[in-house]
Amino acid sequence: MNPGTSEMQFVSALDGVPAVRGVLCLFEGVCSGAADGYARMTGRPAATLLHLGPGLANALANLHNARKARSAVVNIVGEHTTGHLGYDAPLSSDTEAFAIPVSGWVRMLGSATSAGALASEAIAFARTGQVATLIIPADFSWSDGGAPGAKVAEPPPSAMDVSLEVPLDQETGILLGHNALLEPGLNAAARVAAALGARVLLDRTGARFLRGARPFAPPRLAYFPEAAEQQLAGLKHLILVECEPPVSFFGYPNRRSLVAPADCEYHPFPLPALIEFARIFPPAPPADLPPQPPIPEDGPLTADSLGQTLAALLPADAIIADEMISASEIVHRHLAAAPPHEVLPVAGGAIGQGLPVAVGAAIACPDRPVIALEADGSAMYTIQALWTMAREKLNVITIILANHRYRILDIEMRRTGAPEHGPKADAMLDLSRPDLDFVKLAEAQGVPATRAASVAEFADQFRQALAAGGPRLIEAVLSNQ
Amino acid sequence: MNPGTSEMQFVSALDGVPAVRGVLCLFEGVCSGAADGYARMTGRPAATLLHLGPGLANALANLHNARKARSAVVNIVGEHTTGHLGYDAPLSSDTEAFAIPVSGWVRMLGSATSAGALASEAIAFARTGQVATLIIPADFSWSDGGAPGAKVAEPPPSAMDVSLEVPLDQETGILLGHNALLEPGLNAAARVAAALGARVLLDRTGARFLRGARPFAPPRLAYFPEAAEQQLAGLKHLILVECEPPVSFFGYPNRRSLVAPADCEYHPFPLPALIEFARIFPPAPPADLPPQPPIPEDGPLTADSLGQTLAALLPADAIIADEMISASEIVHRHLAAAPPHEVLPVAGGAIGQGLPVAVGAAIACPDRPVIALEADGSAMYTIQALWTMAREKLNVITIILANHRYRILDIEMRRTGAPEHGPKADAMLDLSRPDLDFVKLAEAQGVPATRAASVAEFADQFRQALAAGGPRLIEAVLSNQ
Repeated sequence: MNPGTSEMQFVSALDGVPAVRGVLCLFEGVCSGAADGYARMTGRPAATLLHLGPGLANALANLHNARKARSAVVNIVGEHTTGHLGYDAPLSSDTEAFAIPVSGWVRMLGSATSAGALASEAIAFARTGQVATLIIPADFSWSDGGAPGAKVAEPPPSAMDVSLEVPLDQETGILLGHNALLEPGLNAAARVAAALGARVLLDRTGARFLRGARPFAPPRLAYFPEAAEQQLAGLKHLILVECEPPVSFFGYPNRRSLVAPADCEYHPFPLPALIEFARIFPPAPPADLPPQPPIPEDGPLTADSLGQTLAALLPADAIIADEMISASEIVHRHLAAAPPHEVLPVAGGAIGQGLPVAVGAAIACPDRPVIALEADGSAMYTIQALWTMAREKLNVITIILANHRYRILDIEMRRTGAPEHGPKADAMLDLSRPDLDFVKLAEAQGVPATRAASVAEFADQFRQALAAGGPRLIEAVLSNQ
Repeated sequence: MNPGTSEMQFVSALDGVPAVRGVLCLFEGVCSGAADGYARMTGRPAATLLHLGPGLANALANLHNARKARSAVVNIVGEHTTGHLGYDAPLSSDTEAFAIPVSGWVRMLGSATSAGALASEAIAFARTGQVATLIIPADFSWSDGGAPGAKVAEPPPSAMDVSLEVPLDQETGILLGHNALLEPGLNAAARVAAALGARVLLDRTGARFLRGARPFAPPRLAYFPEAAEQQLAGLKHLILVECEPPVSFFGYPNRRSLVAPADCEYHPFPLPALIEFARIFPPAPPADLPPQPPIPEDGPLTADSLGQTLAALLPADAIIADEMISASEIVHRHLAAAPPHEVLPVAGGAIGQGLPVAVGAAIACPDRPVIALEADGSAMYTIQALWTMAREKLNVITIILANHRYRILDIEMRRTGAPEHGPKADAMLDLSRPDLDFVKLAEAQGVPATRAASVAEFADQFRQALAAGGPRLIEAVLSNQ
């Protein structure tokens, strides 16, 4: 929460309701990202408390990510008193209009006595995997409320069609998304794939991925369309389990948006149907898993050597909040050999998500280490999250991949066919002049921090951080090698 | 700007257009606040370049402020390619819906060849004092454009009614807002007020105030409604020059929103009419202005002693970006004795504006010192602005008023009648545990910084900062005395 005047009764009530934990964030984008992280890890709704339209506006980018992650988030947004709404006060804005693009459900409270019922409606809606926004005029906070709303029941299973017509003699793929990315979906896909000889891939846009050395670890669809097209090449049929036909992240000149072959046929198939279907095939035999790889030889830190070192030291069951951007695919290639872990990617592509999602994941799972793998450029979007890690003593180890550049844009600039950039254009992609000092940014907010420029330094500092527990930050200075 | 893939051609073109200055900001809220600051100081449109819906979303709170300040801002927002828009890619969102609540004009480019004409339309619209948002699908950036749009002419003067019927024997006030707050409006109001015996007040919600020891320095309407009501007490007529009937910032229990007496009659009167009307009265005689006050005796820093010290050392013609929140009225009371200066307040009440507006003002007025007077809580919203100050070597001296608390909410909580807060509620207003270190936050971003806890320390550091020029930051630790 980051409350203001219109939410003071709500804040004041915190002491009367022991079950509610208020977590202060110094910027609303941290609140919404943390709520997303909590909802991803628990499947249960997390709430934000935000101040009027502009407070909600600051939360929107990470609510966009939450929407794409299908996270259960309830926004409680204070509003001017009903009497004040008719005037153009400084903070007057169209709060509902701000909420609509990211919310599946938006209501402005019409009376204090309906608060209970509407709160239940918001929670029920959020539990279907959407963002629900409840706007509360301040005078309904200081007038008598009604009865609490009904306890919200589990959402009923949606109706499903389990028919699947795929010729056995044609190349078939299974693409898993969203809910299908967890244990039950992976297990079912493993059985079906083995029986049908189908290729299994994980949709990029999921909220939560099970990765590392596992008996069944299908690859995630690649970021760039050329690589994704290669992964899907030759497929005549693609079974879409809880996802849409895959498209590239951006459109590019002279390139299709869809990454599956043009003649590929799509077969939407809900997760319960996949699980039911899988029962007719035998479970996969137990597999020998490779031992955790060793720490690489000392040398400069690169995306490769950082990935290898992480793979060597990552504790089992870690949660990785991934906002590495340009280094992400390289690091994850190495982490495939690490012990089983979970990865929370930037579901909606809006950067500034990694640190807030780590906050929410750490609150949701206090017994698991959370590792935020964060590019320097995107870290700066919501750097205030470090303070909440310190305030709440969260077990988050933040690793800043510092290459002093919006590196991904060097690549994207070429891909869009833009001319070679001159010095003015170059400066817009450059994060040096001056360099950012993430050790000071962390210490300034109460998070102990160190800097590592070599494999040995990083290995040492990461080991120490794991032993001490978070919050802790390591600035990993990547060399250009 | 904070561009992404969809804006790469635009960035690449910077080197071909010497008249365009690209300024990189590490978060979009800095871009929009800086554009607002530039537009306030020059009256000319500033442009932002933002990446898709989520990039625009991050800019919205300060666009809300720009809208309330009636600032000329043109947002250029990249969008997916037209072909890609039909798919639900991760970054797909309803960009127009994000833009509408803050923009008076929103257009999505329909063809590359119409870019010139639409750009001219956006600029013409912005020049009427509004936010204009032009959304550009990426494929129109890499296909052939058309001709540049027409050069934008000065907006024509709007039609005006100069009739004013106010009985001379009844108490009359003149409230100046927006454009009327600059020299011509103040001069005209001074002549009319002297002749009619009218009380002059400045509307709170203006973009730019001329303050300090001036021949004519009417008070600004107070923040809290009780004080504003007292300033307006007894008025039978209120002449509204470029503003609306004044309302309190928030609505409160058992209190009207309007702060003028219930029987007060409003008379809207445009600025040109006031200037015309003033000609029939003699100009005010020259006034003796008091000398700049001395530095107070050494002692702990408080809002009072900080205000006195600022008043003693403020250079003439300084621009103050004011986001002091709870300390603002006390400091400004002392600055009334300082040399003439300008104040840029948080026009729309959305915090996180002060540092970005200082960036824009310093770019607009490189020959004038810019002083950002910034509360610790609101500074954290857009703390990334410090990096742009360092990158662009801007003459901004940032003074953080550190009271380690959302102090204004202590007051507001009581005002809304909320019960005394317990420990959980208290923690939501508390910025200590851990304390923020603004010296490190500044140094981490390339801005030299010091900390002052006494009048002597602060005076010394402020003097040195003025001598050296910005960027520079002073953390002014306020004691609770």
